[in-house]
Amino acid sequence: MTALPLPTTRDAALALDAADPLRGLRDQFEIPPGLIYLDGNSLGVLPRATAARVQQVVQDEWGRGLIGSWNQAGWMALPQRVGDKIARLVGAGAGQLVCADSTSVNLFKVLAAALAIAAADAPAARAIVSERSNFPTDLYIAEALARERGCTLELAEADELPARLARGGVAVLMLTHVNYRTGRMHDMAALSQAAHAAGALVIWDLAHSAGAVPVDLLRDGADFSVGCGYKYLNGGPGAPAFVWAHPRHADRFWQPLAGWMGHAAPFEFNPGYRPAVGISRYLCGTPAVLAMSALECGVDSVLAAEAFGGMAALRAKSLALTDSFAGLVAARCGGHGLRLVSPQAAAQRGSQVCLARDEGAYAIVQALIARGVVGDFRAGDGAALPDILRFGFTPLYTRFVDAWDAVEHLRQVLASGEWHEPRFNQRHAVT
Amino acid sequence: MTALPLPTTRDAALALDAADPLRGLRDQFEIPPGLIYLDGNSLGVLPRATAARVQQVVQDEWGRGLIGSWNQAGWMALPQRVGDKIARLVGAGAGQLVCADSTSVNLFKVLAAALAIAAADAPAARAIVSERSNFPTDLYIAEALARERGCTLELAEADELPARLARGGVAVLMLTHVNYRTGRMHDMAALSQAAHAAGALVIWDLAHSAGAVPVDLLRDGADFSVGCGYKYLNGGPGAPAFVWAHPRHADRFWQPLAGWMGHAAPFEFNPGYRPAVGISRYLCGTPAVLAMSALECGVDSVLAAEAFGGMAALRAKSLALTDSFAGLVAARCGGHGLRLVSPQAAAQRGSQVCLARDEGAYAIVQALIARGVVGDFRAGDGAALPDILRFGFTPLYTRFVDAWDAVEHLRQVLASGEWHEPRFNQRHAVT
Repeated sequence: MTALPLPTTRDAALALDAADPLRGLRDQFEIPPGLIYLDGNSLGVLPRATAARVQQVVQDEWGRGLIGSWNQAGWMALPQRVGDKIARLVGAGAGQLVCADSTSVNLFKVLAAALAIAAADAPAARAIVSERSNFPTDLYIAEALARERGCTLELAEADELPARLARGGVAVLMLTHVNYRTGRMHDMAALSQAAHAAGALVIWDLAHSAGAVPVDLLRDGADFSVGCGYKYLNGGPGAPAFVWAHPRHADRFWQPLAGWMGHAAPFEFNPGYRPAVGISRYLCGTPAVLAMSALECGVDSVLAAEAFGGMAALRAKSLALTDSFAGLVAARCGGHGLRLVSPQAAAQRGSQVCLARDEGAYAIVQALIARGVVGDFRAGDGAALPDILRFGFTPLYTRFVDAWDAVEHLRQVLASGEWHEPRFNQRHAVT
Repeated sequence: MTALPLPTTRDAALALDAADPLRGLRDQFEIPPGLIYLDGNSLGVLPRATAARVQQVVQDEWGRGLIGSWNQAGWMALPQRVGDKIARLVGAGAGQLVCADSTSVNLFKVLAAALAIAAADAPAARAIVSERSNFPTDLYIAEALARERGCTLELAEADELPARLARGGVAVLMLTHVNYRTGRMHDMAALSQAAHAAGALVIWDLAHSAGAVPVDLLRDGADFSVGCGYKYLNGGPGAPAFVWAHPRHADRFWQPLAGWMGHAAPFEFNPGYRPAVGISRYLCGTPAVLAMSALECGVDSVLAAEAFGGMAALRAKSLALTDSFAGLVAARCGGHGLRLVSPQAAAQRGSQVCLARDEGAYAIVQALIARGVVGDFRAGDGAALPDILRFGFTPLYTRFVDAWDAVEHLRQVLASGEWHEPRFNQRHAVT
């Protein structure tokens, strides 16, 4: 599918959609009519099943079942049940992954555990290494934990990581698989191998990967992983996140958020902590039942692709969509100072296209939103990192005609100069 | 209201309900017909407003508004907005309390911050002191953090706490205000004062207090506080929790869960952490929008009592209900080995009545549930702590006739011996 020719007309794009074996999966979602939504990498759209399922949980399970639903409606098993479904999308085994808390909190758990393992197995290694443009919350969690544990946090550019590992002294390599700004995807197998060769453990944040690109945690040598429920998994705003530990690590140490749901027998109410066997010790507080039920609908919407080739088929369509969009921008929006910053090589590309522009990126994104084309803006640092126009392509529900129409709107916004209007420069709290 | 005479007939109980100025507040809730629900201290009932509000969030704000709702629907401000409402129930100021994460995770944050303050101000004090029968998740979190920080966790009986504080070396006194097993309420002002006199900080877990008993954190000298959204605040199963820090402490240190939502400017995407001013630095990951919207409906259901005297009026009714229930058990269920273990003195009593029995407590609770009287069972330790039959009285929606009828069912269960039936001894996962 990546060899598809670039559509040269809107009809050609429509023909690609008509021939798309995954086209029916879009019907699973409530997408506002006329909207071209290219921001599923920030917040996935609403599955049609979710509203009814949430009502059932609220009115039947909570309203009528009350506390009996902890047993009868299976609330207690939600973290494991939804976790097992996500495991199928990321190459983890059944019983190895649970849903809980936020990505940030889960990262804290696994980084703390990884540092404990490193302290036991390779006490001289004191550095946490990450990518300078990793998503900031990952860096903040690592910065705080490095202070707690007397470690250092070292940030490097992506290309410098193998050399940094080879120099030694690295306890943990902590990376986000697909970079949130550039859409660049790391080679999980190669970097995991390099980390292990250097005596380091590796943590993979799958925020922009789970449900978007094929991931095989077990095959590719990951030690720990976390990920986000509200992006490509369509779990809803602030959905619970997930956490995975390789079985060889899961039982070795406590993680510090040793709450009662990670206890071997929470309802014995013992005053002393005795961690559950396996990944369940990475649970902490009471499961967020409403939110996790919504997340399950979102995960199911991705699993529905299994009947059509699963993640491999979604990946092929994602690459074709991002090829189309990037190619059409190059062909039809030239001369306006846009630079492609997401990778052209398929092996390095996530499911988004990122464009940089020296000025006006924020206003152009706002002008597109006013036209019903929703991407988003990610600020640069005024130095090496440029401002970014970011367009996410969720292959479950994004069409080739959406890519075509989005480029046409972008062309018009640039040609008309309408983005200079003052209203497009009024910054919102969330950008 | 605490001086109400014990109802001697069911009609007398109905008369008390007819005269109850808070009786209309029950209409806010969906309570299954015929059910006598005395477990709001485990999971509050469903407010009528919640289902529609959650649907609005799912279908309109998420489904149609998509990422624009972070700004336009006020999602970003939910932790502070709901937090300000809870603050009114616990004697905290506006802008001092936020909703986030679980009680366990929030306890980790404030205990870590309190230990950092203690390490700076009183480095010789290395003990975390708590109550032996504190809710286990609090003890587990403290146990794990004590290991991390090289502190000790010392558990004492409630009556031993002042003497332990006076012996010195205590960094943090960490208590749950109302004991989950016994319903005994600590004197927050006296213990906070004793802690401060001993150079210690004090953390109050309000899981069984917020929305049930009057709390005045600022007046009574609390340093930090956390609490639960799904008990007396009626926020739904696994609802987000809350966290408060006294303004004199809030800005002093980071808490270790330094996620992006606690950053001073999360959408600048800086690689270095710069904590927000005040309580917002106790946020971590992305707000759980669906769950927090449901919680807001629950908190509103408690705030509705403000028109009828607020927490003072709720407290008066709670004491009258627990007086009625305990008095009727004594009067009508004698000779069956039940012992009242919740305090008779109003000043020491939370909003629950706890009965101990040497055997059969679990089965008696199950037999009551089969009759539509929902309390719960809390296991003892086979030694000093007895098995408990626990009955929570949420004054927002519990009636005097419920107390009467519950005692009548209990009398019949005991008199008939029906709790000996094998089906009432089949243990569930959650008890």
